[in-house]
Amino acid sequence: MFIHKKELLVPVKVEAPNLRFGQYLLEQFGGATGELTASLQYFVQSFHVTNAPLKDMLLDIATEEMGHLEMVGMLIEQHTSGASKVKAEESQLFALRGRGPHFLDSFGSAWTASYINEGGDVTRDLRANIASEAGARQTYESLILQAPDEGSKKALVHLLTREISHTAMFMEALQSLGKLTDPYFGNIPPDDTVNIYFNMSSNGKDERGPWNSEPKFRYVADPLKGRPSDVHPGVSVPGSEEVFESDKQHSVLRR
Amino acid sequence: MFIHKKELLVPVKVEAPNLRFGQYLLEQFGGATGELTASLQYFVQSFHVTNAPLKDMLLDIATEEMGHLEMVGMLIEQHTSGASKVKAEESQLFALRGRGPHFLDSFGSAWTASYINEGGDVTRDLRANIASEAGARQTYESLILQAPDEGSKKALVHLLTREISHTAMFMEALQSLGKLTDPYFGNIPPDDTVNIYFNMSSNGKDERGPWNSEPKFRYVADPLKGRPSDVHPGVSVPGSEEVFESDKQHSVLRR
Amino acid sequence: MFIHKKELLVPVKVEAPNLRFGQYLLEQFGGATGELTASLQYFVQSFHVTNAPLKDMLLDIATEEMGHLEMVGMLIEQHTSGASKVKAEESQLFALRGRGPHFLDSFGSAWTASYINEGGDVTRDLRANIASEAGARQTYESLILQAPDEGSKKALVHLLTREISHTAMFMEALQSLGKLTDPYFGNIPPDDTVNIYFNMSSNGKDERGPWNSEPKFRYVADPLKGRPSDVHPGVSVPGSEEVFESDKQHSVLRR
Amino acid sequence: MFIHKKELLVPVKVEAPNLRFGQYLLEQFGGATGELTASLQYFVQSFHVTNAPLKDMLLDIATEEMGHLEMVGMLIEQHTSGASKVKAEESQLFALRGRGPHFLDSFGSAWTASYINEGGDVTRDLRANIASEAGARQTYESLILQAPDEGSKKALVHLLTREISHTAMFMEALQSLGKLTDPYFGNIPPDDTVNIYFNMSSNGKDERGPWNSEPKFRYVADPLKGRPSDVHPGVSVPGSEEVFESDKQHSVLRR
Amino acid sequence: MFIHKKELLVPVKVEAPNLRFGQYLLEQFGGATGELTASLQYFVQSFHVTNAPLKDMLLDIATEEMGHLEMVGMLIEQHTSGASKVKAEESQLFALRGRGPHFLDSFGSAWTASYINEGGDVTRDLRANIASEAGARQTYESLILQAPDEGSKKALVHLLTREISHTAMFMEALQSLGKLTDPYFGNIPPDDTVNIYFNMSSNGKDERGPWNSEPKFRYVADPLKGRPSDVHPGVSVPGSEEVFESDKQHSVLRR
Amino acid sequence: MFIHKKELLVPVKVEAPNLRFGQYLLEQFGGATGELTASLQYFVQSFHVTNAPLKDMLLDIATEEMGHLEMVGMLIEQHTSGASKVKAEESQLFALRGRGPHFLDSFGSAWTASYINEGGDVTRDLRANIASEAGARQTYESLILQAPDEGSKKALVHLLTREISHTAMFMEALQSLGKLTDPYFGNIPPDDTVNIYFNMSSNGKDERGPWNSEPKFRYVADPLKGRPSDVHPGVSVPGSEEVFESDKQHSVLRR
Repeated sequence: MFIHKKELLVPVKVEAPNLRFGQYLLEQFGGATGELTASLQYFVQSFHVTNAPLKDMLLDIATEEMGHLEMVGMLIEQHTSGASKVKAEESQLFALRGRGPHFLDSFGSAWTASYINEGGDVTRDLRANIASEAGARQTYESLILQAPDEGSKKALVHLLTREISHTAMFMEALQSLGKLTDPYFGNIPPDDTVNIYFNMSSNGKDERGPWNSEPKFRYVADPLKGRPSDVHPGVSVPGSEEVFESDKQHSVLRR
Repeated sequence: MFIHKKELLVPVKVEAPNLRFGQYLLEQFGGATGELTASLQYFVQSFHVTNAPLKDMLLDIATEEMGHLEMVGMLIEQHTSGASKVKAEESQLFALRGRGPHFLDSFGSAWTASYINEGGDVTRDLRANIASEAGARQTYESLILQAPDEGSKKALVHLLTREISHTAMFMEALQSLGKLTDPYFGNIPPDDTVNIYFNMSSNGKDERGPWNSEPKFRYVADPLKGRPSDVHPGVSVPGSEEVFESDKQHSVLRR
Repeated sequence: MFIHKKELLVPVKVEAPNLRFGQYLLEQFGGATGELTASLQYFVQSFHVTNAPLKDMLLDIATEEMGHLEMVGMLIEQHTSGASKVKAEESQLFALRGRGPHFLDSFGSAWTASYINEGGDVTRDLRANIASEAGARQTYESLILQAPDEGSKKALVHLLTREISHTAMFMEALQSLGKLTDPYFGNIPPDDTVNIYFNMSSNGKDERGPWNSEPKFRYVADPLKGRPSDVHPGVSVPGSEEVFESDKQHSVLRR
Repeated sequence: MFIHKKELLVPVKVEAPNLRFGQYLLEQFGGATGELTASLQYFVQSFHVTNAPLKDMLLDIATEEMGHLEMVGMLIEQHTSGASKVKAEESQLFALRGRGPHFLDSFGSAWTASYINEGGDVTRDLRANIASEAGARQTYESLILQAPDEGSKKALVHLLTREISHTAMFMEALQSLGKLTDPYFGNIPPDDTVNIYFNMSSNGKDERGPWNSEPKFRYVADPLKGRPSDVHPGVSVPGSEEVFESDKQHSVLRR
Repeated sequence: MFIHKKELLVPVKVEAPNLRFGQYLLEQFGGATGELTASLQYFVQSFHVTNAPLKDMLLDIATEEMGHLEMVGMLIEQHTSGASKVKAEESQLFALRGRGPHFLDSFGSAWTASYINEGGDVTRDLRANIASEAGARQTYESLILQAPDEGSKKALVHLLTREISHTAMFMEALQSLGKLTDPYFGNIPPDDTVNIYFNMSSNGKDERGPWNSEPKFRYVADPLKGRPSDVHPGVSVPGSEEVFESDKQHSVLRR
Repeated sequence: MFIHKKELLVPVKVEAPNLRFGQYLLEQFGGATGELTASLQYFVQSFHVTNAPLKDMLLDIATEEMGHLEMVGMLIEQHTSGASKVKAEESQLFALRGRGPHFLDSFGSAWTASYINEGGDVTRDLRANIASEAGARQTYESLILQAPDEGSKKALVHLLTREISHTAMFMEALQSLGKLTDPYFGNIPPDDTVNIYFNMSSNGKDERGPWNSEPKFRYVADPLKGRPSDVHPGVSVPGSEEVFESDKQHSVLRR
């Protein structure tokens, strides 16, 4: 069960109402990367995650994010309620839909659970959460760059901070499962193509990096020669530039 | 520009058409975790990612995923085209909407770009991609468990394999940026609360783990005493169980 | 701020897992009439409603609905977690998306904030809330009629009960504003057509009732004669069957 | 069957085209609270409502709302067609999508049937309709406050007026069923908790009102003591401030 | 303005209620190709189409489609209302959402105005209408193949018939504008590439037809040699198989 | 399989970045009439269209449209990346969501597969494609009218050109099936009402044209007299103005 306390997790104080900025803030109230997405994603995961400590962590963070949702809502309320009659030129959204927060993003699109990524496996869930935190952090940075007053900025820096905090927690949780740096998880072993890199986009300079270099990866320069389908059964690959050191790699990538 | 070759990346061969399974496969054609989501997400990222090698990697993988989309489409086509007149009892979807793939998930919901996670920063993008791959892998595992024939199963295992391959590549890419295990990224330094863990969900046993233990984290057992807002300015926290070793942590979490 | 307690508002106990019924229950977790809609609607209203006692009521009920969301989630979890491997024939949704609740309705459609009705005026909000409770009650009745075990049924009857309780509270709140039985609210006085009833659908027997009878209403039997536009300036209406007693009515309907 | 007459229900006359205001008007053409929502909601209800007089009323009002949809469309047409080439700075929407009305709201979001609230019971339907009318009235008030010319304003006041008229009719209809002021409806009797009020949001001053006072309601000040689950079987509630006069209340709230 | 008559355009008579088929019929009530899409598309076009006879035609057909929507709704009502208590096994949709039509498709997805195609030009609108009629006809054929009784089948054949009728009318209308067989319309002349066909998909046998043959079209067999960008200024194309007879073609394709 | 080449189909060169115009261009990247809609629609059709030459044409054009999607994306990238820090006043979208293209339209609405029209029959598919090309052409014209620089304009004229080219191809393809000017297709013969025109919208002058004139069509001036249902069995129609020459017409319209 949830209990509400009539105080914010961290107080917010907008210095001067700014309808336009209030509208931008909807990104983190009813937008894809916002606090509603985060809190509902972690909350719904907590039901199917059976590992008790991780379940507890998900509930702790989900509940904190509900408090953050309230903080963002209060920022929007303060940016919109101080003004007298709202002119649509200043903010079409608050003039037509009413002041205060709404579960819309800053373009008026309704929040949808299609933003949520979860289901079936705790590693998948934790990786989804790191991605959600990254999106949230990115949007907070964008908002801070546009923030018109110090009070808004300070609150947004705190909210950005907590996304980093949660990222650190989710990374530790993945690490505790051995899945922060190991690509493999789940119950189905991969086939022999797991360490092939297909150079599907060519012309100009083909760039290389640790993500397509030996010994971890086997680079197929021209997938049309040495067609991907040819390499499937693990036979030698004509168009491949490098000798394939399969055994060592498979143990790294496939467990 | 894209060029299409009339051969699949890896050939697929369904042994016996199964309309119901064909419908399930739509999850990976027009569903949230499917190949369309992956290919469009990496493709759209490739425009704003300025790091040339990473841009090339995104295009390589995006293009491979388009080939995977085609493979899943062909699986669906083979599962649905072999049968004579489709009875709605066998598959409401193919009976009413026509045979072959559609950009719908297995419940008939239209694909939406709300599934895509991208924008503004390459670290955010790569983290989003690892999450997308995790979702895709999870759905492939679910489908493999339901697969009615060996041909479908083999194709799905290959597609699952490549999600792990891509995860490995994205992890290497993040590692090359120093961001695989570092929670921090971007241009805004966090505030003093970055290493606090708030125990927002209580009653019963509060579980602990590396994600809320010293020295990395500072555990606030009761956020109502030692209110989160009180800890904001960095003062001592009455309800905290442990001494706060802030200096070392801040360097870890905040850079 | 919100605090979570690891106990349900009212314990739920499913006697025998039933995947299909678990899927039906999603209607009240991620569906249009479900607990998420209610809790978010009342919560978001609480920001712009300035009447302090009503704001408090909205927060009390919003928070209770979050607890109800958790109860429904736990019912779904119990209906899906007890079974061993889920066969897609039993539940396509849990087989492909994973066990436990998701923010989808029972047809797999993602929850959307388009379900929410709020904004700009407390009377509008409270009327919206009575409608939301009516929808929720209706769906609970449908679910109770399909419930396979006494434990589920008992929990659902409780949840249905609370929708009636909230309706009673919202009715009292509207009554305290004088708006439970008065159609008028807001700041714009209506024009002279406020008590006309246009019989736009004809043929067969035109039914009459208190909603189109004098003295409250003035019935225009044939809007093509005595065109609605003709009656606009308040002149006599040729096609009208009854004498118009405007003065008394206007005071009732227009304030 | 429907017949169309090439005249408006009430003529509209825009004095000076205003592209921006034309865009705002889309709220009531293709927006959540607009005339399409109302007309389709009442029309679809008319199929399953078996009470003949109420079915007739629903068809009368649904058809009138179609006429209102046409009036709003004509206002938009007049605001957009008079101007010569539309510059996107004046209205991004009409410049890119063409002049005249579209089934979009003023932010370009496509109308969705998720806005509709109906099904299964006439009381639920009528309550939904009062809520829809309240939303429509509220948006008309917002638009009137922004209206640039008297012709638009006069038309909008008429449309606002008719929402009040319909509210009055729906209230009479609910009253005829005895459901305007009675919270209970349907076929499932509530359990013993029907008149409890849970004070789920605390700190600061807890406000009280007729919605949580005896004799109608029983106030549980601290749901953590006297847990809601404890009160379920109807036993005495330690944390409750007041003696519970259950018998009289149950008759009021439960029928 | 619209007037409703309480009789169907063409009476429908379901012989035996069939809940499952009732659910399928939702495709044409609240689905993408259904009567709501058609009627609203033509109605909204009627505002911006300035050609008076075409505007009248759009209103005639839009209004007929509203009558068809009512017929489909009545078919659904008859398929669902005859049965006693609906078991969810028979129809999850009617058991959980109530009997009769809803603005959902047969998979429970809410109707969206994203299905509508219109705007800015009458040729575009009429082409969109022919496409909408084609989709509607296709779905009616699918439904007729599943129809369980002669009464339903007869009604559906009539509705399918009228889609063909409307197609014939829209074709005549396009023909009257000279745009049924002329690809060009609008105010911007095309550039020199208008009659090039790029063979973007190769391997296997490249099929040819009148859509990529001279004299109307100029076939570029390998867009990588004779790159499309090279042909842009109208110079000779190395990879082209045929001599380019530009002058005659341009007059055909470009006006 | 798809192969990507790191060069555009036709190079694009924006002369001066313009954030606002970059946002407008999203209409053709992530909007209803954009290149993603076209490429995915033709690609998904290619699976179920069994006519090999038409399947090849669909793949050729789908692949070209993917190249066009990339061109539009590059235009957006060039309009947004040249500028230094984006101020939200210049473009709310790029300031909050990041520079470069996104799968959103210019109003921030996420792309949805509800824009796609396909399924079950090649004639339906080709008609849908002509409509899609018409919508795309129309939007390109709107964008060209707003284009701030010659480089953008030239690229957009090329993209508009190719929509006309594709229209020409689809028209030839339909013609090769005999379905460009014949309204009928599919397997269900229409009933006797196929050539009736119902004058559903009256008052004012009823306009006539080739779409409701003999000998092809039979005009029913007043559907209330000579009710549509009366004409169904093919009997004489009292309200009809003209003698019905059914036999010749049926052969034209029904095949």
